[in-house]
Amino acid sequence: MILESLVTTLNADGAPHLAPMGPRVEGKFERFTLRPFPTSNTYCNLLRHPEGVIHVTDDALLLAKAALGEVDPLPAMKAAERVKGFVLADSCRYFEFRVQSIDNSAERVSIDVEVVHTGRQRDFWGFNRAKHAVVEAAILATRMHLIPRGETAAEFEKLRIIVNKTGGPDEREAMEFLDSRLRGAL
Amino acid sequence: MILESLVTTLNADGAPHLAPMGPRVEGKFERFTLRPFPTSNTYCNLLRHPEGVIHVTDDALLLAKAALGEVDPLPAMKAAERVKGFVLADSCRYFEFRVQSIDNSAERVSIDVEVVHTGRQRDFWGFNRAKHAVVEAAILATRMHLIPRGETAAEFEKLRIIVNKTGGPDEREAMEFLDSRLRGAL
Repeated sequence: MILESLVTTLNADGAPHLAPMGPRVEGKFERFTLRPFPTSNTYCNLLRHPEGVIHVTDDALLLAKAALGEVDPLPAMKAAERVKGFVLADSCRYFEFRVQSIDNSAERVSIDVEVVHTGRQRDFWGFNRAKHAVVEAAILATRMHLIPRGETAAEFEKLRIIVNKTGGPDEREAMEFLDSRLRGAL
Repeated sequence: MILESLVTTLNADGAPHLAPMGPRVEGKFERFTLRPFPTSNTYCNLLRHPEGVIHVTDDALLLAKAALGEVDPLPAMKAAERVKGFVLADSCRYFEFRVQSIDNSAERVSIDVEVVHTGRQRDFWGFNRAKHAVVEAAILATRMHLIPRGETAAEFEKLRIIVNKTGGPDEREAMEFLDSRLRGAL
């Protein structure tokens, strides 16, 4: 099972780095396999300091902004308990982890991590079609260069209808944000 | 915001009735507006006994089966605390409610309900594309008669790819189940 999550790692200057990531969840959230691109900050950070935090969130707006690398300023964070790292203050659950092994023999790196501490902060909202449409639209936005232009636009419009019918202000803001980036790129 | 939920009401014989429903959530899950079809069992049950339970679940397989009216036997339930009704034992959170007002002047009935008791049982899994693809596939399956055949099939195949990439055995079983019903109907 793949979790669409937010991952924090430690930059060289000790500041937090935030990135969206779809790790494979093993067991009952006891281990994860991360698959960052070898050029990503997350990968560089984990080579330098092999600890971080994976978050379960229902904040589709934050996920969308993170997917396009435009979270500025970073949301409120607190120090992790068992690792040197940062926890998103508004996440639902989080998993502080330590790297067990790194396999960089393929195009995508594969990093096995072990959870050393778990915290819960609030309930996940629940199944909401709009939140998920935003997640799909964000994935679409990061893959624009791989998909024919008309296809992206048509898919985006379908997702927008779902957001308008079932979402709230945050989900509509997320679609406006993604739409402006898509228009800029097309 | 619309919650894709499971709702239990009381049948005439006192047995639980389970139905998927997309109520509008008001405030912090303090009130909901249900919009059942006037021919539905949920509506008839609420006219007879104006209490029930709305559940937040991440069980996409159960939601898919409930959407096609094929949950047999019903999953484990326990008696509600503050209303005469039933709570799904495996749900994440639940909201025991009492009907405040019913407006049946339009095609879809509009029922305002007030939450009188809230419970939480376990964490929601988190954002998973496969779980949501199953929800979308289930909605598609209930609307087959409204959508051109080829369009339904194409959309279903897109959702299946997401489930295979990001889901687990339950999500794949849900797609097999929905696929068999779609094939039967097409």
